[in-house]
Amino acid sequence: MVEIDPWSSTTYKNYARLRDEFGIQEFTRDLWNDLPNPHKLLRRNVVFGHRDFRRIKRAIEKKQPWALLTGLMPSGRMHLGHKMVIEEVIYYQSIGAEIFIAVADIEAFATRGYTLKEAEKLAKEEYIANYISLGLKPDSCQIYFQSKREEVKDLACLLGKKVNWSQMVATYGFSSSTNMIHIFSPLIQTGDILHVQLEKYGGVRPTLVPVGVDQDPHLRLCRDIVQAHRLFNVILTRERRIGIMGLSITCHSFLSTSYFTFTKCLCPSSSF
Amino acid sequence: MVEIDPWSSTTYKNYARLRDEFGIQEFTRDLWNDLPNPHKLLRRNVVFGHRDFRRIKRAIEKKQPWALLTGLMPSGRMHLGHKMVIEEVIYYQSIGAEIFIAVADIEAFATRGYTLKEAEKLAKEEYIANYISLGLKPDSCQIYFQSKREEVKDLACLLGKKVNWSQMVATYGFSSSTNMIHIFSPLIQTGDILHVQLEKYGGVRPTLVPVGVDQDPHLRLCRDIVQAHRLFNVILTRERRIGIMGLSITCHSFLSTSYFTFTKCLCPSSSF
Repeated sequence: MVEIDPWSSTTYKNYARLRDEFGIQEFTRDLWNDLPNPHKLLRRNVVFGHRDFRRIKRAIEKKQPWALLTGLMPSGRMHLGHKMVIEEVIYYQSIGAEIFIAVADIEAFATRGYTLKEAEKLAKEEYIANYISLGLKPDSCQIYFQSKREEVKDLACLLGKKVNWSQMVATYGFSSSTNMIHIFSPLIQTGDILHVQLEKYGGVRPTLVPVGVDQDPHLRLCRDIVQAHRLFNVILTRERRIGIMGLSITCHSFLSTSYFTFTKCLCPSSSF
Repeated sequence: MVEIDPWSSTTYKNYARLRDEFGIQEFTRDLWNDLPNPHKLLRRNVVFGHRDFRRIKRAIEKKQPWALLTGLMPSGRMHLGHKMVIEEVIYYQSIGAEIFIAVADIEAFATRGYTLKEAEKLAKEEYIANYISLGLKPDSCQIYFQSKREEVKDLACLLGKKVNWSQMVATYGFSSSTNMIHIFSPLIQTGDILHVQLEKYGGVRPTLVPVGVDQDPHLRLCRDIVQAHRLFNVILTRERRIGIMGLSITCHSFLSTSYFTFTKCLCPSSSF
């Protein structure tokens, strides 16, 4: 059995098997070939899997609005893995995505022992400054702190009604000694992902969440919750109430197991 | 073994045994005798137990500020049990307590299936209107909705770090099928109780929470959390950081088992 734990530093060796066991689909050439100037991370198969990326592709082709949400947990120094994600984000920003970056300060507090103030300082000085210097355009991008965006916490509370303890144990392997905010933090992430479709933040539209494969459990939980609340794939419900669209996800491999591919990316003369 | 479940409608017959098994202290005459015009609910032993009420008594005697927090869960009609609590609250308001009333709309959503809008309507029309007509002075009282007071949710998140799943199971008997917001709602109540001591809401001062004995598990959890965060009984810590004071609690018996006493209360000619 393959185990995926979002809070460990496990390396994954067999991505094809991960795809098969967790229902991640292969990120095939037809998905990226027609995008404007497809990014090297797509061309070189570092982005190796997806769920429902076709929805995003369609929005790009039809020039319809779509959003991208990614997160950063401020703990320790920024590394090449973060760089890889932000390069992907910057590419999508250049082809029309509205970008949301969640600073997971509550999760850093819950699982890494940082205070919210320490997390804020680290996020600004270590991560966000680097993201901008790498090319992220801050003006057309919302960078926010989990602890300060109330809609995120509200959604976490409301959506938590359709998830029970056994589902959390099955997804994350929580035990009796897991603390309550660690237990609750995946729901806050669900709030992060879904709040971008609230009217205040741009309304219902396809939303892409590019992640390392270790984060896949969060996305599966989130998609399950969307489905449990009958929000899946619904734009206008029978009662003419606006719902939340299903999520699209891309998974990239890890630096540790795709280092060679990644170093090629760093070399400007490589042309694939 | 006696079991106390805050979400059931169990009746409790042996209050002395409850006191012994859960460490609730007897609400003896010396605690209320010197208060200004002691209320009939105190005199007649309907308020039968307490934890740390002496702290409140001292604040009243020294004319120091103190707060009272109570809550209402908007579900169904207001009944005589609610009336009993609010009479106690009105009495304490008349002798100087700053009153906070939490409308537990998140809990009503999580455990009773009301939407937040339904809960709001019910709270205003059924409960708060009656409270005011019974004599609560709304001008010197804060009535708020859990879902709208951000400090409450923030405290719930922060304090949840020192509580683990096994403690929640031991306190509430949660099982695999309990939903996540039900699991989290006691922490939101902890946020309710403790936020009144934040600087914005009046700062550190003795806080009384008058409850029916069925709510005692929430208070025990809350006091445990205060202790785990080393906030117990601390006004100014060594680092000159202001902490949160321990809580005081009074427990009253239930209408179902103290009906006679209570009907006596309703009769103006009774004089104890």
